[in-house]
Amino acid sequence: MVVAAPSLLLAASPAEVAGEARRYRQANEQRIIAELIALLALPNLAGDAPNIERNAQAIQELFARRGLKSRLLRIAGAPPVVVADLPAQGAKKTIAFYAHYDAQPVDASQWSTPPWEPAVKDGRIFARSASDDKGPIVALLAAIDALRAAEIKPGVSLRFVFEGEEEAGSPHLGAYLEQFKDDLAADAWILCDGPVHQSGKQLLYFGARGVTDAELTVYGPARSLHSGHYGNWAPNPIVTMTHLIGSMRDTEGRILIEGYYADVKPLTEPEREALAAAPPFDREIQRELLIGRTEGQGVLNERILQPALNLRGFSGGRVGEQASNSIPVDARASIDFRLVPAQTVERVRELVERHITRQGFFIVRDVPDAATRMAHPNVIRIVWGHGYPAARTAMDLPIAKQVTEIVAAAAGHAPVRLPSLGGSIPMYIFQRGGTVPVIGVPIANHDNNQHAANENLKLQNLWNGIEIYAALMAALR
Amino acid sequence: MVVAAPSLLLAASPAEVAGEARRYRQANEQRIIAELIALLALPNLAGDAPNIERNAQAIQELFARRGLKSRLLRIAGAPPVVVADLPAQGAKKTIAFYAHYDAQPVDASQWSTPPWEPAVKDGRIFARSASDDKGPIVALLAAIDALRAAEIKPGVSLRFVFEGEEEAGSPHLGAYLEQFKDDLAADAWILCDGPVHQSGKQLLYFGARGVTDAELTVYGPARSLHSGHYGNWAPNPIVTMTHLIGSMRDTEGRILIEGYYADVKPLTEPEREALAAAPPFDREIQRELLIGRTEGQGVLNERILQPALNLRGFSGGRVGEQASNSIPVDARASIDFRLVPAQTVERVRELVERHITRQGFFIVRDVPDAATRMAHPNVIRIVWGHGYPAARTAMDLPIAKQVTEIVAAAAGHAPVRLPSLGGSIPMYIFQRGGTVPVIGVPIANHDNNQHAANENLKLQNLWNGIEIYAALMAALR
Repeated sequence: MVVAAPSLLLAASPAEVAGEARRYRQANEQRIIAELIALLALPNLAGDAPNIERNAQAIQELFARRGLKSRLLRIAGAPPVVVADLPAQGAKKTIAFYAHYDAQPVDASQWSTPPWEPAVKDGRIFARSASDDKGPIVALLAAIDALRAAEIKPGVSLRFVFEGEEEAGSPHLGAYLEQFKDDLAADAWILCDGPVHQSGKQLLYFGARGVTDAELTVYGPARSLHSGHYGNWAPNPIVTMTHLIGSMRDTEGRILIEGYYADVKPLTEPEREALAAAPPFDREIQRELLIGRTEGQGVLNERILQPALNLRGFSGGRVGEQASNSIPVDARASIDFRLVPAQTVERVRELVERHITRQGFFIVRDVPDAATRMAHPNVIRIVWGHGYPAARTAMDLPIAKQVTEIVAAAAGHAPVRLPSLGGSIPMYIFQRGGTVPVIGVPIANHDNNQHAANENLKLQNLWNGIEIYAALMAALR
Repeated sequence: MVVAAPSLLLAASPAEVAGEARRYRQANEQRIIAELIALLALPNLAGDAPNIERNAQAIQELFARRGLKSRLLRIAGAPPVVVADLPAQGAKKTIAFYAHYDAQPVDASQWSTPPWEPAVKDGRIFARSASDDKGPIVALLAAIDALRAAEIKPGVSLRFVFEGEEEAGSPHLGAYLEQFKDDLAADAWILCDGPVHQSGKQLLYFGARGVTDAELTVYGPARSLHSGHYGNWAPNPIVTMTHLIGSMRDTEGRILIEGYYADVKPLTEPEREALAAAPPFDREIQRELLIGRTEGQGVLNERILQPALNLRGFSGGRVGEQASNSIPVDARASIDFRLVPAQTVERVRELVERHITRQGFFIVRDVPDAATRMAHPNVIRIVWGHGYPAARTAMDLPIAKQVTEIVAAAAGHAPVRLPSLGGSIPMYIFQRGGTVPVIGVPIANHDNNQHAANENLKLQNLWNGIEIYAALMAALR
């Protein structure tokens, strides 16, 4: 166990702190990796309560090893929030570091190694949550260790807040911040979720897109039918769905739903400047992803500032060897929507449902009964998931400038600054109505397969993350 | 074992023969059901060579039990064709009865009872092939038994021909008929495949639609991507596919591919008359299938005389609990095409591929390499299955009238006569260039879940089938 020493290396610069963190890391790599691997071995789907509990306890144990007392905040029916504090004597501010310890669902059949059996290969750790977010959690802990080893004391009080249902849409995070006001108070938040820029440069993000999702089911015949005897007469639900999807979104990413772009707020001048300074990297990513075209006009960094409608899945009947000449009973589509300021989840849902109704569908919430199916030419079941709005922190706030300078010094290069992450994290909750600054300082490699099979974290990104976080902890005021 | 007696009940009318068959059946129901169950217990996918062989041998054994010598015709790499003859002394004609002993693929997870563990429930036998075509095979054997028991001798030589790869598109049936000209010669064919009319009335069909199928794959990013970080920029393959499907077919069953209807041959006058005499039954079927609309204008019997493009399956990403906020790597669609006179498989493929090319796709036959994917905005892999054309037998031929009269007498009602079955069976091969009459006399219930989960045969349909087939065997001249 590392114990804080009384002496204090005063006014170490962010670059010096990063150097100390590097030396510490180089001497402790195997221990850090072992700590991450142990954490990654715990399955952590938000809905899997017993395992989620094991994860929360494992993180508490990691704090305890460092002599830090943590606590589990609890709301009935929700995964606990793990909180630990590292107060600084005389500090006027508390800066909170946020990450989540739950994970996206897995389709194990697509993984090269089992998702919860961490494998180190080619300089990366493969496992569900390696990058999103257990890697960052372990980086934060190692940064604390590195500061202590170098006898560097933070100039602000530090608070660590780890959520357990971010990938489920953070349905209770608002309630947690409301119910545990003091436990979760902070003057600013540093979010550790997300990947760095595709160029490999450190990334700072000052916003995030909002998100919601919907499961759509349309219905064909009550039983699967021989396509020869009934094809052309019994409605094919796959065709019903393809035409509906076609009416909602074109192949260029443009959402065709009436009024959808009416609420979209334009970029500010500092946001435009930061965006213009970001290195172009599209062609390289295209080559890496083997895509012969991109959707719409404009570079990736601009495209992710737009609202998006993404088809997560489409399923009806069978393809390949399992295909049979029949008309399937239903077709399902799963969609995620990315929201930008000032769209609201409610308005998006309203516009989508108005559009679907106008396409001639009768909307139901549950599996429709026989009478409902017979009474309407087209019945669609829509089940909405959780959702939350987008958020932005102004790039010209003092804390925004401080974070930019510290990260630049620690990383040795000017970070890419984006007005918003393309992905969604519930920044709006931390903002408490827009009064609390929230800035994202992610560390994961951009090709981390986040949310997909073979999620991974490059070890070099873990090492860089320890230096960046140590510098922020030491130098923020 | 039943042995043919020397005496002979001369000139029994079809109705009398049917009566004899009924009495025989009533006395032997359990034995007939046991015979069918034993046959249904053998898995019989066309591609499963060892089991297909077991099925062929089991059918040979059924003939042997009756003292009938059967033989297996063989072409390398194809399931054997089972042939058995029942010659009639002095007969000038040979009438062949055709059925197939192979089955459509199964998705066992959708079945209430395992597909190859026959279950008798509510007056039906549930199993793969119960109706399509093992039920009809057992009905033919029982009809032979019934005629022998009643000492009725057929007036024509009978030939029984059972194919083992109909559900795979009968890729070798043409070669079999070519290579085994004498073994498979017949003056006319009675096909036992398919269901009766939805009204429950006996059905005669004088044609069948042709068929072919295609597997389409379109490509997104090389690895699954976080939809937040890349959505709106990396092409979503599901959307690419939905728009392609949307361009090929509308929700009313109309095929939008240029020139697709140019080859379609109009109905003859006898065909129109037969169609007009068929009982309307659409509203009842709609209620049974819980469909609030039908595709296009016109009754089912007319709709199935049109070319059809059916979506058998669509798969991309994940839906429901497994959905994650990502852009999938590909999307697949499986399509079956139903052909009518005088469309050809070659022309259909040509028109479809021309259409897809015009939509901006580069067509490949195998999984595309990186260079191909980067060189084209949209790459599509198309894999065509087997296919064959439609066929029709003129309704005013003498044999056509004979069959109509015998079936009417045996069934006690005028059969519904359709110019063509909506489904596909390789009638064109039996027609030998249009010179040999081919007429379908199906016995399965229309709601038999053919090609789908929980395939079944109503016992009453099996009983009726024995009477119909016995009458045809006895009375055809």
